[in-house]
Amino acid sequence: MKKTILMAAVSLTAMLASAQQALWNTAPTVSPEINSDNTVTFRLNAPKASEVKVTGDFLPTVKIDTPYGVFDAPGYATLTRNANGVWEYTTAAPLAPELYSYTFMVDSMKINDPSNVFLLRDITSLSNIFIIGGDRADLYGVHDVPHGNLSKVWYPTSLGTDRRMTVYTPAGYEKGDRRYPVLYLLHGMGGDENAWSELGRAAQILDNLIARGEADPMIVVMTNGNVSQQAAPGETSEGLVQPVAQRPRTMDGTFESTFPEVIKYVDSNYRTIPEKDARAIAGLSMGGFHSLHISKQFPDLFDYVGLFSAKITPDGNAPSEVYADFSGKLATQFAAKPKLYWVAIGEKDFLYDENKKFREVLDSNGYPYVYYESPDGHIWKNWRIYLTEFVPQLFKK
Amino acid sequence: MKKTILMAAVSLTAMLASAQQALWNTAPTVSPEINSDNTVTFRLNAPKASEVKVTGDFLPTVKIDTPYGVFDAPGYATLTRNANGVWEYTTAAPLAPELYSYTFMVDSMKINDPSNVFLLRDITSLSNIFIIGGDRADLYGVHDVPHGNLSKVWYPTSLGTDRRMTVYTPAGYEKGDRRYPVLYLLHGMGGDENAWSELGRAAQILDNLIARGEADPMIVVMTNGNVSQQAAPGETSEGLVQPVAQRPRTMDGTFESTFPEVIKYVDSNYRTIPEKDARAIAGLSMGGFHSLHISKQFPDLFDYVGLFSAKITPDGNAPSEVYADFSGKLATQFAAKPKLYWVAIGEKDFLYDENKKFREVLDSNGYPYVYYESPDGHIWKNWRIYLTEFVPQLFKK
Repeated sequence: MKKTILMAAVSLTAMLASAQQALWNTAPTVSPEINSDNTVTFRLNAPKASEVKVTGDFLPTVKIDTPYGVFDAPGYATLTRNANGVWEYTTAAPLAPELYSYTFMVDSMKINDPSNVFLLRDITSLSNIFIIGGDRADLYGVHDVPHGNLSKVWYPTSLGTDRRMTVYTPAGYEKGDRRYPVLYLLHGMGGDENAWSELGRAAQILDNLIARGEADPMIVVMTNGNVSQQAAPGETSEGLVQPVAQRPRTMDGTFESTFPEVIKYVDSNYRTIPEKDARAIAGLSMGGFHSLHISKQFPDLFDYVGLFSAKITPDGNAPSEVYADFSGKLATQFAAKPKLYWVAIGEKDFLYDENKKFREVLDSNGYPYVYYESPDGHIWKNWRIYLTEFVPQLFKK
Repeated sequence: MKKTILMAAVSLTAMLASAQQALWNTAPTVSPEINSDNTVTFRLNAPKASEVKVTGDFLPTVKIDTPYGVFDAPGYATLTRNANGVWEYTTAAPLAPELYSYTFMVDSMKINDPSNVFLLRDITSLSNIFIIGGDRADLYGVHDVPHGNLSKVWYPTSLGTDRRMTVYTPAGYEKGDRRYPVLYLLHGMGGDENAWSELGRAAQILDNLIARGEADPMIVVMTNGNVSQQAAPGETSEGLVQPVAQRPRTMDGTFESTFPEVIKYVDSNYRTIPEKDARAIAGLSMGGFHSLHISKQFPDLFDYVGLFSAKITPDGNAPSEVYADFSGKLATQFAAKPKLYWVAIGEKDFLYDENKKFREVLDSNGYPYVYYESPDGHIWKNWRIYLTEFVPQLFKK
């Protein structure tokens, strides 16, 4: 098809569409189509399929009962053949503003939408995405505002290898000699240095909040919290190896105890304000765990801490010094009066109870914190929301 | 599934695999599997499919006859059900070292391999990839060598909008105050600023050539040659709009005439050697066309020019001043004695004859150039090869 496209594009421009269609039987199927009333139509050209379903977070969740407990899982909707023989489904109601993800199930086989090149990888699975604009979801789209740059940066470590981080520098960073505060933003289990900029829309959220004047310009550093891995899957000498959720040494104290190396590198290579009151750390799930334990291990480093659906308690099998004396270190951290200790979780999150107990510890000690509770569970929708809530509170004098 | 994975990862580690399998019937299908003899096995779990094929550039091409001419298209191989009911195909012979791409056809529907998260987008279509290492293909993989950084950079233009480029800075750039030469590397029709770093494996090729001592450390700037577009699909305020091969104003002289703005930005924001003998420009197809016309429009800017499967002759409907006086500008360019004028094309390329005529022009005028001919046609395999051949010749004093 490449040659056809090129030929057509170079010398047969007007014929392209019809040529492709005639040659390849690929009349373009539009999917998803966001209709003017914000209902959404999904289409799939699967002439020989006997059943096509769509699943995604735009559908109400359903309960599934398993040997390991009852879980919420995305529901399904069934597509039917339209007049052209193309499978089609339109949502019963308009969708609320949000970034949604979905996949198709064709005769029990899960596939991505061949009509939509926009995919996000969440650990081992790829889903297509679309955005219904408006409200908070406008923060997730690219708008005609000044854009920050996003870089994949290799930095040295004491772990025997260079490692990779993603760095957002705000629009205007290149001009002048202004120094900026830094948010360190950490991913969850199975994630990597790409998670926040891809699934989390961090660059779009920062661009938009800064352009609105709702957040101060800041540098955002998105590390890779899996110390057994130099970088995201495919970006290391392991080759194009399928990602896995579980890697060794993700919560054994090593990432936490070596985190000052990250800060040292960033402060040495970027125009940062290298002060506690210009430094924030936040993360989701495992990254919230890392943020909690890093910030209390190094109580002089961060004035802003964000725990997004955080795992709190270390595994009993991880006897790192980092996890020792939880209470004492927390007391030291709060004695140093952080400007913001922000705890967020979804009401359906499986870590809800663990967070509740942690808040009771904070309460009983009189440690000040801000609590944000949202609907839903342990999902990216919540983590994007938390980022939009957390960032405007940072670095206020 | 996220919740299951997270639950398991956090507290039920050992149960994960069996839990997922039991709950979701997703016994992991390994595909592609590169066997020890470099045959490759493809697998797809499609229980209700009646026919599954794989197509990709690892298979011999087949001729297809169309109203627009005879084209080479990738061949197909048919998968058969193995003992577990999973569709499977193993290549008849070992594959030569190369980066290969493929997709499945399930009952006439083209899909990506659900077992392989590594995908590349080529204009409108996504294909899975895998690499058979060895020989030149070792340049395409990530190896345990120092890595350069890759940045998505927004720069101002006179076109009324900021635009986006991809910038590779070599390993060690951050240290010290060394200045570097710059290769400007341009994409083809339908491509964008992501094409060379993704399909072209430019960062890997540069990392590996530099680590071997076969290329000088250099900055590589990968622009977006579609002036009607600020950035790659999904990265602009157009939203998540499906990409198209044809955009307006791709070869109307505007990109070429404003190219000095790119150079000015790069020389102002990076530690470059801002001299002709430390500047190269190369591109594929439309990018070769851009490289040809930019380098002759600005004969004092580039000492190194690479035309990879280049379109040569402007469309008669593009009466830009850039395209006027082809012969005179070429004479001026060669009078300034560029150090390398490199022309490469595949023997099956549809632009072969056009390149042959251009070489005759160069020959008849006694303009020195280096010619490199490869098998195959207008495909990324060739453009990666050309990059590996071109880069080691750059910036030799």
